[in-house]
Amino acid sequence: MSDHVYKSVELTGSSKTSMEDAVNNAISRASKTLHNLRWFQVTETRGWIEDSKIAHWQVTVKVGFTLDDE
Amino acid sequence: MSDHVYKSVELTGSSKTSMEDAVNNAISRASKTLHNLRWFQVTETRGWIEDSKIAHWQVTVKVGFTLDDE
Amino acid sequence: MSDHVYKSVELTGSSKTSMEDAVNNAISRASKTLHNLRWFQVTETRGWIEDSKIAHWQVTVKVGFTLDDE
Amino acid sequence: MSDHVYKSVELTGSSKTSMEDAVNNAISRASKTLHNLRWFQVTETRGWIEDSKIAHWQVTVKVGFTLDDE
Amino acid sequence: MSDHVYKSVELTGSSKTSMEDAVNNAISRASKTLHNLRWFQVTETRGWIEDSKIAHWQVTVKVGFTLDDE
Amino acid sequence: MSDHVYKSVELTGSSKTSMEDAVNNAISRASKTLHNLRWFQVTETRGWIEDSKIAHWQVTVKVGFTLDDE
Amino acid sequence: MSDHVYKSVELTGSSKTSMEDAVNNAISRASKTLHNLRWFQVTETRGWIEDSKIAHWQVTVKVGFTLDDE
Amino acid sequence: MSDHVYKSVELTGSSKTSMEDAVNNAISRASKTLHNLRWFQVTETRGWIEDSKIAHWQVTVKVGFTLDDE
Amino acid sequence: MSDHVYKSVELTGSSKTSMEDAVNNAISRASKTLHNLRWFQVTETRGWIEDSKIAHWQVTVKVGFTLDDE
Amino acid sequence: MSDHVYKSVELTGSSKTSMEDAVNNAISRASKTLHNLRWFQVTETRGWIEDSKIAHWQVTVKVGFTLDDE
Amino acid sequence: MSDHVYKSVELTGSSKTSMEDAVNNAISRASKTLHNLRWFQVTETRGWIEDSKIAHWQVTVKVGFTLDDE
Amino acid sequence: MSDHVYKSVELTGSSKTSMEDAVNNAISRASKTLHNLRWFQVTETRGWIEDSKIAHWQVTVKVGFTLDDE
Repeated sequence: MSDHVYKSVELTGSSKTSMEDAVNNAISRASKTLHNLRWFQVTETRGWIEDSKIAHWQVTVKVGFTLDDE
Repeated sequence: MSDHVYKSVELTGSSKTSMEDAVNNAISRASKTLHNLRWFQVTETRGWIEDSKIAHWQVTVKVGFTLDDE
Repeated sequence: MSDHVYKSVELTGSSKTSMEDAVNNAISRASKTLHNLRWFQVTETRGWIEDSKIAHWQVTVKVGFTLDDE
Repeated sequence: MSDHVYKSVELTGSSKTSMEDAVNNAISRASKTLHNLRWFQVTETRGWIEDSKIAHWQVTVKVGFTLDDE
Repeated sequence: MSDHVYKSVELTGSSKTSMEDAVNNAISRASKTLHNLRWFQVTETRGWIEDSKIAHWQVTVKVGFTLDDE
Repeated sequence: MSDHVYKSVELTGSSKTSMEDAVNNAISRASKTLHNLRWFQVTETRGWIEDSKIAHWQVTVKVGFTLDDE
Repeated sequence: MSDHVYKSVELTGSSKTSMEDAVNNAISRASKTLHNLRWFQVTETRGWIEDSKIAHWQVTVKVGFTLDDE
Repeated sequence: MSDHVYKSVELTGSSKTSMEDAVNNAISRASKTLHNLRWFQVTETRGWIEDSKIAHWQVTVKVGFTLDDE
Repeated sequence: MSDHVYKSVELTGSSKTSMEDAVNNAISRASKTLHNLRWFQVTETRGWIEDSKIAHWQVTVKVGFTLDDE
Repeated sequence: MSDHVYKSVELTGSSKTSMEDAVNNAISRASKTLHNLRWFQVTETRGWIEDSKIAHWQVTVKVGFTLDDE
Repeated sequence: MSDHVYKSVELTGSSKTSMEDAVNNAISRASKTLHNLRWFQVTETRGWIEDSKIAHWQVTVKVGFTLDDE
Repeated sequence: MSDHVYKSVELTGSSKTSMEDAVNNAISRASKTLHNLRWFQVTETRGWIEDSKIAHWQVTVKVGFTLDDE
């Protein structure tokens, strides 16, 4: 990470299968409008239960990107 | 809460009367530019004092909204 | 608070009107099965938004009660 | 907030009716001996239960004041 | 999440294979005695090592359920 | 600690003499109704003062137990 | 704890022998100038080592007292 | 700070020389697209090392601005 | 640090130039009324922005002093 | 866990595929120089993004081991 | 504490009798390989239960020592 | 930061002049025995006061380095 200015935003992605997939979905959606995504940090892992089973995972991430060439 | 991607932003609303009203003001202002607001979480409650009385409350909230149909 | 053993449980109450009312609802419900409730501590304040307005508040409390005369 | 030195103290106010009133009581009491009160921050919200009802709220605040013209 | 009262309990599940499976095991066990499970939040992820390998994962979750129709 | 599901509850014990004794009292009381207690973690240490002396210690612990053979 | 206003201050006491004794020393010293001490909460436990042995314990407490009849 | 609604964003600035300069760089960059910047709070201070020397500082700040006249 | 009782207070100092200078100003002001200042710990670093530039830094410190020879 | 003295160290492992694999890699590397590894606790989960995709996960763990027979 | 560079390590000591003794055991073991130990800070207090009684205490400490004359 | 295993250690550096210099001193000392230092994170900023002036700053950092080619 070199000498830039970064901005970070907080996103929550969902997945029926795994935590990793929930993060993938959040980053995939974010990349439609934000370029130069560089890193993420998991800040919360939750999920919803239906019929005594995990219906889907919800993972919240901070995602950082460079502001330089906006 | 179903299988979406959410973004959350941090807002601070003010009110002369109550904490609830300060949150209302923040959400009311946010809804002018952000649609699909879904939830909020209070992260800080402060206030300012003038002449030994509470002049106004300032409540900071994280507000989450769906990114899907932006 | 004298020389007892306490247990605390975590409850979340809801209200359309105020944070105080949400806590009241949680404690009212808890008192149906738990006796000797003594204190509470607010640990999280959230809410849900519908049509750009606060639909209801959700306040989470730890509620403590004496175990002695169970 | 301009170029001053501030001190902050921690107070807990009580009220039978609301969180806001509990903060009001703490600040009102503090203003008898401390001048130039400027801001507060809520750091804890608790309460006591009697007969399965909230007997009173206890809200703890940090209260800041300028030291300059003491 | 509508206008209910929720209780949350803290459980720790174990798995030899993955974090997700450890949460699944905790929820599966909890559903034997608790009905109306609605959500969970991961609060700690640990594990035990034997012979320089991960023997099993231990994931702690808060699990919330409605109290209304108990 | 092997491949079980654990539940943890939060208890507060009191003692006029020491922190250790306050934890002992909490665990002794808990063992009347909970079996298979396995571990505890101290989460808060408080106390009450009377006549400028410590009247008693109050130590809060999370206590974990196996759910398997309930 | 009834319907008062409380102030809390942060003190650190020392002892060569035990954590409890370090808290005792802090409260004993505080009671020379502060009356109506009501409760304390341990916020930090440290110590100093000399010649590979614990030279003394240093326990920091928040101590609360009523402001009403100052 | 009067009766407005604020939004805060999280930025990370870099500098080869000092923490203060890293914050300056973040705010300078932010002011190109955000007006009415009012305050900041440092939330993390990190840095990168090359050849056993600090190559640059990276300071993360929350920056608040008024939404009123956007 | 030997076998004393310490009290700590929370102060916020300001400076147009640097974080270090803001702490200096807080300690310099505190030393007018408090003797035997021994240590400080930075607990928060904020600042105010005017015309897209840092107007001044505000650094909050806990400052500890011995109570022994008050 | 019996009556030993433990030391814990902080390690960060990487993986292109999953969080679990990142922890595996950290522990596998640690076991080359540290024996008697007993447990770990996940303290941070981050990752790096390239071309709008997760390039690799980085999971930080505290790893504990017995000092007794070093 | 004068103008040195310090390193701190995290240790967990055990004792059947008291928290103080558990810290003593950790420091005693550490002093076999680390010299110039200067201070410690308690970061976690846990314990294990057998037959409804505390089998032993486990106290985790950060222990700091000077690097200067290694 | 590519696909390595990292270890981090906690160091405290001192300086009479600035926070930055205190970190520099810690890293300079660490580089005598640790190679491949890559990043640091400030975790605590303290200082000592003599004659009502800051005698020296003490900044604690986590310092990370690659384990791969040890």
